[in-house]
Amino acid sequence: MPDINSVNRPDEWKIEQGLSGAVLPVLDMTGPETKALAPQTFGPLTKDEDAIKSVGDRDALFKMERKGWKGYVPLLPLSEGLNSFVEWENYPDKKAAAHKILTSQTFPPNPEYQLGPIPATNPVLPGTHWKMWHHAVGGELTQVPDDSWDTVLREKHPDMLHLLQFPYNGEPPSASSPTRSSLPIPYTSFTLDGLVQNPRAFTLDDLMDESKFPRVEKTVTMQCSGTRRIEQIIKYAGQGDEVPQAPWAEGAIGTAHYVGISLKKVVKACGGLVDGAKHLELYGADTYFKDDEAMNYLVSVPWSKAKANEVLLAWEMNGETLPRIHGYPLRVVVLGYIGARSVKWLYRIKAIKEPSRAPVQSKEYLYFPQQVGKHNLKMTDGIQIQEMPVSSAIMSPWTKQVVIHNGKIRCKGWAYSGGGRWPERVELSTDGGFNWYTIPLENLSQKRKWTWRTWEFDLPCDVEGWIEIVCRCWDNSLNTQPPDVRTAWNWGLHVTSSCHRVSVYSVNKTRPVTKARLDEFERAGVPFGPITVPLPFPSQTWDEYEKFWSRNDPRDAED
Amino acid sequence: MPDINSVNRPDEWKIEQGLSGAVLPVLDMTGPETKALAPQTFGPLTKDEDAIKSVGDRDALFKMERKGWKGYVPLLPLSEGLNSFVEWENYPDKKAAAHKILTSQTFPPNPEYQLGPIPATNPVLPGTHWKMWHHAVGGELTQVPDDSWDTVLREKHPDMLHLLQFPYNGEPPSASSPTRSSLPIPYTSFTLDGLVQNPRAFTLDDLMDESKFPRVEKTVTMQCSGTRRIEQIIKYAGQGDEVPQAPWAEGAIGTAHYVGISLKKVVKACGGLVDGAKHLELYGADTYFKDDEAMNYLVSVPWSKAKANEVLLAWEMNGETLPRIHGYPLRVVVLGYIGARSVKWLYRIKAIKEPSRAPVQSKEYLYFPQQVGKHNLKMTDGIQIQEMPVSSAIMSPWTKQVVIHNGKIRCKGWAYSGGGRWPERVELSTDGGFNWYTIPLENLSQKRKWTWRTWEFDLPCDVEGWIEIVCRCWDNSLNTQPPDVRTAWNWGLHVTSSCHRVSVYSVNKTRPVTKARLDEFERAGVPFGPITVPLPFPSQTWDEYEKFWSRNDPRDAED
Repeated sequence: MPDINSVNRPDEWKIEQGLSGAVLPVLDMTGPETKALAPQTFGPLTKDEDAIKSVGDRDALFKMERKGWKGYVPLLPLSEGLNSFVEWENYPDKKAAAHKILTSQTFPPNPEYQLGPIPATNPVLPGTHWKMWHHAVGGELTQVPDDSWDTVLREKHPDMLHLLQFPYNGEPPSASSPTRSSLPIPYTSFTLDGLVQNPRAFTLDDLMDESKFPRVEKTVTMQCSGTRRIEQIIKYAGQGDEVPQAPWAEGAIGTAHYVGISLKKVVKACGGLVDGAKHLELYGADTYFKDDEAMNYLVSVPWSKAKANEVLLAWEMNGETLPRIHGYPLRVVVLGYIGARSVKWLYRIKAIKEPSRAPVQSKEYLYFPQQVGKHNLKMTDGIQIQEMPVSSAIMSPWTKQVVIHNGKIRCKGWAYSGGGRWPERVELSTDGGFNWYTIPLENLSQKRKWTWRTWEFDLPCDVEGWIEIVCRCWDNSLNTQPPDVRTAWNWGLHVTSSCHRVSVYSVNKTRPVTKARLDEFERAGVPFGPITVPLPFPSQTWDEYEKFWSRNDPRDAED
Repeated sequence: MPDINSVNRPDEWKIEQGLSGAVLPVLDMTGPETKALAPQTFGPLTKDEDAIKSVGDRDALFKMERKGWKGYVPLLPLSEGLNSFVEWENYPDKKAAAHKILTSQTFPPNPEYQLGPIPATNPVLPGTHWKMWHHAVGGELTQVPDDSWDTVLREKHPDMLHLLQFPYNGEPPSASSPTRSSLPIPYTSFTLDGLVQNPRAFTLDDLMDESKFPRVEKTVTMQCSGTRRIEQIIKYAGQGDEVPQAPWAEGAIGTAHYVGISLKKVVKACGGLVDGAKHLELYGADTYFKDDEAMNYLVSVPWSKAKANEVLLAWEMNGETLPRIHGYPLRVVVLGYIGARSVKWLYRIKAIKEPSRAPVQSKEYLYFPQQVGKHNLKMTDGIQIQEMPVSSAIMSPWTKQVVIHNGKIRCKGWAYSGGGRWPERVELSTDGGFNWYTIPLENLSQKRKWTWRTWEFDLPCDVEGWIEIVCRCWDNSLNTQPPDVRTAWNWGLHVTSSCHRVSVYSVNKTRPVTKARLDEFERAGVPFGPITVPLPFPSQTWDEYEKFWSRNDPRDAED
């Protein structure tokens, strides 16, 4: 008998399953012989304590600046979540100090969660680097990761699916974003400056003056461009840091009702744009890190978007004061754009000529072609992601679920299209996308310009065994979804808009053999699932077996 | 020796090739036995001469009404072309007379051009029914089909690809629409009425008064929703009349520069909309037939589209007076919508509450789901086609073309997206759409909001033999094209937006064997094409043959 404790060569069984891609040597085939190149390794961590001390008293430098903004709440619960702190862009000396601190030490390499399996921890990813950067800078920033998580536990729905602890990312358990009210916090003002006729500050009272700014109410769906990213990660690895690695599934989208005003009117109240301004840069009072710099969260939207009254400044959400976690006291809501443009904790808007050069706008949220990766990427290779394409998802049943049905599988899901386009038709297929069943329009929720539609459908299914339910949507511009994840894969792991595919094990009780077998399970008191547990009784009696062969040709053909 | 003149069973060789689908019996499998049902046949034609005479003097009834509008020029050269005549909607008595005439006789069945091969005539389709209807109604309408064709021959580019003689449909030979100037024709006025504060008429002089209506210039791409319909027809038949059967390829799209004014300003000059009006119905003075009715060409656009200054009234095209064939003296140009909404020979605009119930708006140009056809179709099953989805096409090389190359195939084409979205990226594949090459942005024409982009690219191609070049585009909303014609097929044969696929026979001259063979052709003075002509010299000498087997295992394996 062989020794079952014998040891495999290191990692070989994992390599065979594609679970250890990160440790595989790179093969260099450019010479006459193929060479195996070892993957990158990392030296000991270094820290120049003197340089760090030279920046001065960090508790004084990095403390909360604005009265009432304390709380370090997360940004964009449906997208990358970051944390409020100071108006970095108003304090070049503090930015310089943070940069000095961050470049005076090294940090451990980024954890690898793509070429190996996604960890089974909860939350799924800790957010190691973002925590380290906050701790490294020091002062009150040190408390931010813990405060953020406390706020999540306090303000978020208890059934929230947590994907990344810090900066917080999660998926709501139900169709619409959860919301909690928060205590009133005094708001000072936000400033509109740059290329406007008369730069000025506005208090919340100014903005709420209906004689100056007519009130606007909108129901709006916000979608993160990382929605369904997990499908890309499982198939092909991409850009490697924890934010792109956040393994979003179908829940990175939510719908809420906002009250506020049109940003266009505020720009007009400043006398309008001057000197060829074409974009509005939006400043959120939360801390962002990129390339050893501490900064605020900054993006921009084109003036044409604001001019069409499609950029709101909102202070109310789902009938309550905007929760802190959603940007209290004032956030931007950009209709039909990805969530990343809807800046929270707004403290400044600056009119500028070109789209913002801030990292979120010009280095991140870019849609790269298939053949672009870290060896050949340039920022200009990526399309700026503003509107999401048409997409849809099956929310029930889930993948790997067993469904016992009478010829119809009850399905539920959502469909959405960016830019103010709306879902016109949602279709399901059980044959990989060759034939499609249209969901009747009465099974779709209301058609609106800026929101998703949810749907329910009893999908005809005659076959048994592993099937794949495929979903696609057509919007009012007759765009539809490409077929598979490979179509959508890109280095940044954004915009997974291919047809959503869910593998389900179909058990069709209208078939006599299946019905008889399920009845046997019931009589025996044995649960049917999981399907991988062997059958607890014979699949056929020997009597039935003999009868069958007596009526049919035998197993072996004769001469 | 068998008799080579022996006759096959009728049509059997055609049936085997799928060229006689229309004569195949329908199989009824609903009973215990399968029944073969004969296809529809048509009885003798009937005509009630007395009823027709009872309408009165047709030469007087159906004669040109408006001074200067004579010419019977075709509508929408990039879409269904129809012919100007009278303002039917202003003359209910004439409409009733035409209806009586059309219902007092029967017409032969529609020619079948889908379940059999598309005829090799030039123009490809005659437009039998539309000609018959014009002749049947009588009066000056009788001349329209011939006048239309004369106008096409006079005004259209001599290299035009004619698809349907009447109503005229054709594809321009080059990138932009051809244009010719026309003689000035006196213009009376058009009327804006319906749900507006102050209905009134406008002369062309009124519209050209820059103190009232600021001049607008736009370069605009117009696309017919039938573009690339031929790909659907070749694969699966659909709705059977000559207009849907017009076998458009990649050329049903064109770009021109227009001068005119925004329709919004004209509506404002009437005091704006009243009583909940939300749509504008556009009346063209050309004759349209549907369900035994003669009528004008009518469609509608939403007021929101006009309000955004995206609906123009234009009188100049590519620097010249609008040609008659393009709608002289005044046409509508709807930015980012299908060509069918850009009404020519405009004589009336009516503000209404709901989208027009006219056939072009509510019965035709509908995008049906895959499982809908003549046995189960309802108008409300179709999505109204306003904006075209993102699409692209390869204009060179052509399908079935042989290309000799040095590892790169020179490709040219276009890319377009409706609704003001623009192509951001165009990609080509030589492996069926698994790997994609991005065309560098410098190889694309200028990015503009309302136009297509043309492109050129040397596509890397290592393989030889029949390859398939596939093209797809991503627009700025990150939408892309579904993979194949089946994805797009629909009963109305509209919106063929799937990835364009061109079969090309690749001959790669960088391979030594191929180069040597091509040199042999050259020495022998034998043209290489067509590839199906047998090789005129030996493919290998017996000496080479023997040498090969002496170096390798023989053809038959030994024990």
